[in-house]
Amino acid sequence: MPIETIVELAARLKRKEVSPLELTRACLDRIEKLSPTLNAFITISADSALAEAGVAETEIARGEWRGPLHGIPIALKDIIDTAGTRTTAGSALFEHRVPTEDAEVVRRLRQAGAVILGKNNLHEFAYGGSSLVSFFGDVRNPRDEGHIAGGSSGGSAAAVAAGLCYAAIGTDTAGSIREPAALCGCVGIKPTYGRVSARGVIPLSWSLDHVGPLAATVSDAAIVLQAIAGYDPLDPGSADVPVTDYASALLDGVKNLRVGVPRKHFYDDLNEEVRVVVEQALVVIGKLVADVREVHIEAPADRTVQAAESFAYHAENVARKPELYQPETLRRIRSGENISTAQYIHRRRELDLERRKAQDFFADVDLLVTPTMPMPAPAIADLKKDSAALRPAELALLRNTRPFNVWGLPAISVPCGFTKSGLPIGLQIAGAHWREDLVFRLAQAYELAKL
Amino acid sequence: MPIETIVELAARLKRKEVSPLELTRACLDRIEKLSPTLNAFITISADSALAEAGVAETEIARGEWRGPLHGIPIALKDIIDTAGTRTTAGSALFEHRVPTEDAEVVRRLRQAGAVILGKNNLHEFAYGGSSLVSFFGDVRNPRDEGHIAGGSSGGSAAAVAAGLCYAAIGTDTAGSIREPAALCGCVGIKPTYGRVSARGVIPLSWSLDHVGPLAATVSDAAIVLQAIAGYDPLDPGSADVPVTDYASALLDGVKNLRVGVPRKHFYDDLNEEVRVVVEQALVVIGKLVADVREVHIEAPADRTVQAAESFAYHAENVARKPELYQPETLRRIRSGENISTAQYIHRRRELDLERRKAQDFFADVDLLVTPTMPMPAPAIADLKKDSAALRPAELALLRNTRPFNVWGLPAISVPCGFTKSGLPIGLQIAGAHWREDLVFRLAQAYELAKL
Repeated sequence: MPIETIVELAARLKRKEVSPLELTRACLDRIEKLSPTLNAFITISADSALAEAGVAETEIARGEWRGPLHGIPIALKDIIDTAGTRTTAGSALFEHRVPTEDAEVVRRLRQAGAVILGKNNLHEFAYGGSSLVSFFGDVRNPRDEGHIAGGSSGGSAAAVAAGLCYAAIGTDTAGSIREPAALCGCVGIKPTYGRVSARGVIPLSWSLDHVGPLAATVSDAAIVLQAIAGYDPLDPGSADVPVTDYASALLDGVKNLRVGVPRKHFYDDLNEEVRVVVEQALVVIGKLVADVREVHIEAPADRTVQAAESFAYHAENVARKPELYQPETLRRIRSGENISTAQYIHRRRELDLERRKAQDFFADVDLLVTPTMPMPAPAIADLKKDSAALRPAELALLRNTRPFNVWGLPAISVPCGFTKSGLPIGLQIAGAHWREDLVFRLAQAYELAKL
Repeated sequence: MPIETIVELAARLKRKEVSPLELTRACLDRIEKLSPTLNAFITISADSALAEAGVAETEIARGEWRGPLHGIPIALKDIIDTAGTRTTAGSALFEHRVPTEDAEVVRRLRQAGAVILGKNNLHEFAYGGSSLVSFFGDVRNPRDEGHIAGGSSGGSAAAVAAGLCYAAIGTDTAGSIREPAALCGCVGIKPTYGRVSARGVIPLSWSLDHVGPLAATVSDAAIVLQAIAGYDPLDPGSADVPVTDYASALLDGVKNLRVGVPRKHFYDDLNEEVRVVVEQALVVIGKLVADVREVHIEAPADRTVQAAESFAYHAENVARKPELYQPETLRRIRSGENISTAQYIHRRRELDLERRKAQDFFADVDLLVTPTMPMPAPAIADLKKDSAALRPAELALLRNTRPFNVWGLPAISVPCGFTKSGLPIGLQIAGAHWREDLVFRLAQAYELAKL
């Protein structure tokens, strides 16, 4: 974990007690030392990061402090376009692809003065939670290198958890921010669908893709989300909804909040250590909030929209250069090949209705709490033994996160304990559309209370 | 035209000076007299209409006046579901189809106390503006029975223009409310996409379908839209946006409004009589508003989304019972057969962006004014001669209305004059999303000024 949080650093950067150049050099040193083992980065942008840090240093010295991300070294999942720096999506297909334009989130981060350290490793084209399908090799869990970091934003979570950067931007189509955050022991939030622009981010499924931050603490995640949230008229999925001030929301208490616990589905068949730790978390939360009650929610199961949209993006390359995909990725992409236009249209309309009906979950409660993952990080050796046998596990891994992508609801994973062997366990807190403020409030209150 | 407007009648109904039963009987008499020639109705619901009028009469007598539609006889395009009354979509396929549930707009109309006279003839499954493809025969223009009434809501426009009902509900996917309103000489408004629920309305294209009223005057259309507008959580296309009070909006003037005239495309190749009448209308409007200026707008041309969605709805029936469709309808439906899922997904996303960019049209103007149609109603005999030759004309007919379905902008057609032979000409006034209030204001100011 970083030795300091963004919140602490920002104040000291502003007062010029800390140098962006020193911070950046320290991160680059740690990356050099740890990344060969963790494999958390595909591209390390040392030169440009130092140049950006130098600019930040000059600006801050002149009294032109841009805000809490100014001079803070962060990293980006390598599916997010960076002008002039290759963006590979973890695939041989894009090994040498260099975008000419920054993704909208990158533009916003630069605007906020953040320093971009490099591009994090990920599962090829952001497919999957557990399978090992990066052209650039497996990411290893900083808590135990024999275990996966999770995915698809595995490099981002590992980098944050190992203190290689102060925050990272990931993407989440079925759990790809929350899963690695839970398995590596950091915070990761998938905001409301449409909250953060996905323009310039290589798509997995336009209707389900979400961009969001991973960070060491809830308040750090809130600072990063604040910088990247907001309407982008050029992204069809982006919504023109005002952005809450998360920092001031965090000052409000949680005493009046009502928490729902959807035991059915989300608490079924849990790993015993996960179950015990999460039940303890519910006890802690019960002491913080006005009410904790069981609620009943049906989790959606259909994956037609994701499969069809994914195939739509890859169709041409799958036909022309299938050999450049990892076999498992290819298999998954092709699962969307035979979805008819009519099937897609009908399911896409149903998705809109499911997303809308998800508002009803919050008639009597403000937030939902579940385990992020039903199990801790699997061992890499186990997965290598039999990748086909792993497919059911893959579905099980994402079963608690995926529904929130369908519903488009904001959901965070916050560390809530460890297995006896020291693997992290994550707690998922979800709120109504656009209520990232409430999600952050409870997540932070829990984060502080459990200490 | 009705001898009185809804506005006039509503006041007298409320004061019990007029009887809903008498009004309904008078409408049924006119329908009986004129409908055999005009062919404006597929189903006349005389018994239930009289029963509903009786209930309205009793309620009003008890002082339970529901509002300006209470006791007013109206008609519905026969693509709008009515519980217990067959809803044919103008097709042999649905000749005996009897819905068990009212469409949401019908529920709202009943709630407002309207009397449902029956179901209007239309082009089969709402396809097309000029072609003659109702299983129930051609609708004739009440101004000149040798000419088409336009479509696809032709029966609705003919019924309103001939005074067979005080208003009618139509649907508009490329111009199907505005075209027949213009050709028959009544008012018709296609509201903003998502303003009126389309649940229970047989779809032509979910992303482009709009439900709206046809009426004798602008204020009557405003009264009917008020009753049917509003959020429907069960319709994925419906939007949760507050509904303006149109009646009070109509009290505001138009002196401060700025009008844009998009000459390119919308004023190209006009029939000479249409051109002259519309230029006169622009002179009248110029005297009413703050500013009239030329603006430049690119009209979208792609029809992929409509074709794909239409095929998606019909695919099963086209495969199983193609003989029940009119050949021209079948040809059109099949034009969407080979659109791939990927093509649809990409175009659907582009449609969202086009719709969003349409907001920019209103940076410097409040409203746009164009001819509704580039020509007056074609003669039925001409169309019968060569329906294939008519296809280009079909596209030309809808070229000024269709773009507003893509953009999702509210657009009204208001009568603006006649050809020398007495065929009506319509003026189209369009506004920004959700600004039906401004559209109504200018349309009414023009309607009164031209008298």
